[in-house]
Amino acid sequence: MVKAIMHGCNGKMGQVISNLVKEDDGIEIVAGIDKYTGVKNEYPVFTDIADCDVEADVVIDFSNALAVDGLLSYCGEKKLPVVLCTTGLSEEQLAQVQRVSEKTAVLKSANMSLGINMLLKLLQDAAKILAPAGFDIELVEKHHNLKVDAPSGTALALADSVNEALGNAYEYVYDRSKERKKREKKEIGISAVRGGTIVGEHEVIFAGADEVIEFKHTAYSKAVFGKGAVEAAKYLAGKQAGLYDMSDVIESSSENQ
Amino acid sequence: MVKAIMHGCNGKMGQVISNLVKEDDGIEIVAGIDKYTGVKNEYPVFTDIADCDVEADVVIDFSNALAVDGLLSYCGEKKLPVVLCTTGLSEEQLAQVQRVSEKTAVLKSANMSLGINMLLKLLQDAAKILAPAGFDIELVEKHHNLKVDAPSGTALALADSVNEALGNAYEYVYDRSKERKKREKKEIGISAVRGGTIVGEHEVIFAGADEVIEFKHTAYSKAVFGKGAVEAAKYLAGKQAGLYDMSDVIESSSENQ
Amino acid sequence: MVKAIMHGCNGKMGQVISNLVKEDDGIEIVAGIDKYTGVKNEYPVFTDIADCDVEADVVIDFSNALAVDGLLSYCGEKKLPVVLCTTGLSEEQLAQVQRVSEKTAVLKSANMSLGINMLLKLLQDAAKILAPAGFDIELVEKHHNLKVDAPSGTALALADSVNEALGNAYEYVYDRSKERKKREKKEIGISAVRGGTIVGEHEVIFAGADEVIEFKHTAYSKAVFGKGAVEAAKYLAGKQAGLYDMSDVIESSSENQ
Amino acid sequence: MVKAIMHGCNGKMGQVISNLVKEDDGIEIVAGIDKYTGVKNEYPVFTDIADCDVEADVVIDFSNALAVDGLLSYCGEKKLPVVLCTTGLSEEQLAQVQRVSEKTAVLKSANMSLGINMLLKLLQDAAKILAPAGFDIELVEKHHNLKVDAPSGTALALADSVNEALGNAYEYVYDRSKERKKREKKEIGISAVRGGTIVGEHEVIFAGADEVIEFKHTAYSKAVFGKGAVEAAKYLAGKQAGLYDMSDVIESSSENQ
Repeated sequence: MVKAIMHGCNGKMGQVISNLVKEDDGIEIVAGIDKYTGVKNEYPVFTDIADCDVEADVVIDFSNALAVDGLLSYCGEKKLPVVLCTTGLSEEQLAQVQRVSEKTAVLKSANMSLGINMLLKLLQDAAKILAPAGFDIELVEKHHNLKVDAPSGTALALADSVNEALGNAYEYVYDRSKERKKREKKEIGISAVRGGTIVGEHEVIFAGADEVIEFKHTAYSKAVFGKGAVEAAKYLAGKQAGLYDMSDVIESSSENQ
Repeated sequence: MVKAIMHGCNGKMGQVISNLVKEDDGIEIVAGIDKYTGVKNEYPVFTDIADCDVEADVVIDFSNALAVDGLLSYCGEKKLPVVLCTTGLSEEQLAQVQRVSEKTAVLKSANMSLGINMLLKLLQDAAKILAPAGFDIELVEKHHNLKVDAPSGTALALADSVNEALGNAYEYVYDRSKERKKREKKEIGISAVRGGTIVGEHEVIFAGADEVIEFKHTAYSKAVFGKGAVEAAKYLAGKQAGLYDMSDVIESSSENQ
Repeated sequence: MVKAIMHGCNGKMGQVISNLVKEDDGIEIVAGIDKYTGVKNEYPVFTDIADCDVEADVVIDFSNALAVDGLLSYCGEKKLPVVLCTTGLSEEQLAQVQRVSEKTAVLKSANMSLGINMLLKLLQDAAKILAPAGFDIELVEKHHNLKVDAPSGTALALADSVNEALGNAYEYVYDRSKERKKREKKEIGISAVRGGTIVGEHEVIFAGADEVIEFKHTAYSKAVFGKGAVEAAKYLAGKQAGLYDMSDVIESSSENQ
Repeated sequence: MVKAIMHGCNGKMGQVISNLVKEDDGIEIVAGIDKYTGVKNEYPVFTDIADCDVEADVVIDFSNALAVDGLLSYCGEKKLPVVLCTTGLSEEQLAQVQRVSEKTAVLKSANMSLGINMLLKLLQDAAKILAPAGFDIELVEKHHNLKVDAPSGTALALADSVNEALGNAYEYVYDRSKERKKREKKEIGISAVRGGTIVGEHEVIFAGADEVIEFKHTAYSKAVFGKGAVEAAKYLAGKQAGLYDMSDVIESSSENQ
């Protein structure tokens, strides 16, 4: 049984993961870390990871950029693998991630869902076949009306994945209303729809001559991201130092069939 | 049998309509008008409508803005009803349309398809129920990679229809990538996807709390627009002077059930 | 402030509604009824409605067919309006609903979501225009892999609504794999997809010549049904005896604009 | 320049391909074969392939099962590669295909579109990752109202491809309305929608816990199948004897990038 520390245990995702882990025989949470202590958990909670003396195999982090510095120091020092799900890290923090990954296993992904991470790979295969055959590539993402950034980080990750497969020759276009002109061949249009409580929908469209192929991912709740984090933690426990991402988790699960 | 003049008979839509009419027992084309004469038709073709001496009940027009002035003069003078499908008219031309409609029946619509015109009406009913209940409204349209304008005229017509039902209180937003901010309540996001040979797809999305309602129209060929024009011509023949649109055609067909 | 009794308060939907009501200034739950008492609520709970002596304006019911008999007797006797959301009632129980509705206001609908109930109406308008124009009508619904019935009650309600608008002349077809034959004009194909945890998706398709119009409803959580029930309760309190459904609630909300 | 014989040149697909080839610098049609001779073509037409004395590198066949016997004999004898697009062959004919493929190159696929054939491969990758993670697999296909068979051959090919990747452990389910029971884990539900003039839409759905991934292919005209056949012919000319399918064409085009 993998022993995990939940970093950011009293946030929304921390609680989602705490619940998911209860139904999983392969992993348990042995301690939580959170500045906010108003939630009752079945494990001891510390306000600072530096104070945590519970033995663990891995840390799952869904906290905030401010809390990440202390977390990375701790994990580097203790050689404790960490699944890093906090987004919006600074350049400096990304550099620290790199340094810490030389001392322990660090897993970091733009989106933790199994489905999105599988699509990141399949879309590269599709792009290599369809782009040379003249297909145009477009992306539409939909999220709730409180999201402040557009397009979503996941949409950009999907576009980057496609673009990488095509030699990074494509430009992203976010608005076509300002100019009267035909679509350029080497562009990827990215549209962001915002409304209601939509958790997250991403659709990649390959449009050719009389033929359209669409890859669509829909998340119905945040549990999707929690589930991916839990799988990642189980995978990462015991791994040697290095930088990992969700594609490693997927490959390994596919090999175990 | 309604006798129609096809104005712009040798363009793409003129030919589509010529073929559709062959299979329709209620209407026939008795003459065509086109500057370009390289197409063989089963009816006489004149390069200028002023030279056309064939008796008719109605004109179907799918030409270009330049040819519309002469057409409107002719129809006004002869009190000949006209289905005006050419888009991109100038302010001046729109004023002339108004004047001519005092002398004869003129039918003009942003989109000639039955489905789109039905949606224009149903969306108003939907908006009046869903907007007060807190639903956000968004629109996504998809067209081929040669289309130079974005969003499509039809997308704007759909948004305008919704907006009108809501007291014209909404603003249209075409790009969310430039600012970090939450969606405003009184906005309608409009996204334009361009790729391949997509004929035309319009999707109006009402996104609420844990509930989304979508209205989607897909055109698979330009015949859709021709068919609407033919129905409009059959409806308009014999009508008294005035300005009509496709909603009149739909209402009448619905009453005849 | 409307005072409501929550009948079936400790079931999934009872708890969903208890939470929704906390954020609503127009309604409060003053008592709950449930055989199962293992949940802590902020209101008194009785195991049988017959024992409930709390004054209320309306009952919201999400229980089970067995509990409905006692509920109907109680509401009829006390002339207490009731929003009846339990499904799978017997013929006999439906007859009792009818009788009780002569003594008090009873609201009953196949699906409590605002969106579905709006579609029930709009689809009738659409069908009257599109069916005579030769459009074929099909329905696809998607639900989670634990649902035992297919098609869903909501899918049948949508089909019935369309069929009613067309003079009940259509037959429903659930399987086309058994015969080699063309589609009949007067049929509505109904397909049921089952998988994962899909809460509920219903799509009505009107397919014509080169043109398709789709009406789609997606529920992202059961809260959607709870919200409709809460709105219904607020509407029903104080209403005179009679049988009501969600279309009355929608009409009233639309008139209040 | 590849020289092709168009077998079934005066049918719908034969004409589609004749037009496509005109705009392709890599291939030309040097002769056509068709019992029906009422169409004017730019190449000589023979009523029987046995009478055709024009030199060619490859045959493209879109005829009917009756005409295939003579075609196969001819190609086997002349060691002439053949792209066989006619469907509905008998067991006996399939055996002959096998025998002829020992003498010359024969390419045969359930669906000739580039997109579908790419999906056949990608779906296997997806299934191997998603099925073990508990995702359910469903398929919805949509076609026009004149199609007599359901589900489509392409839908079955897609399901077979997924099933093969999963050790052929899944059963197909076409109707869920007859029984009240939960979905079995090892089933693939296949739904067939019929309406209007829909050319062909196939959607494979992987539905998991709070997460759905969809792969969708839409054909807007039959040209899509013609284009695939033309690419196949260009690929097959000069190849050694053997049985090929569209996946070979795709692989080769992907390698040439």
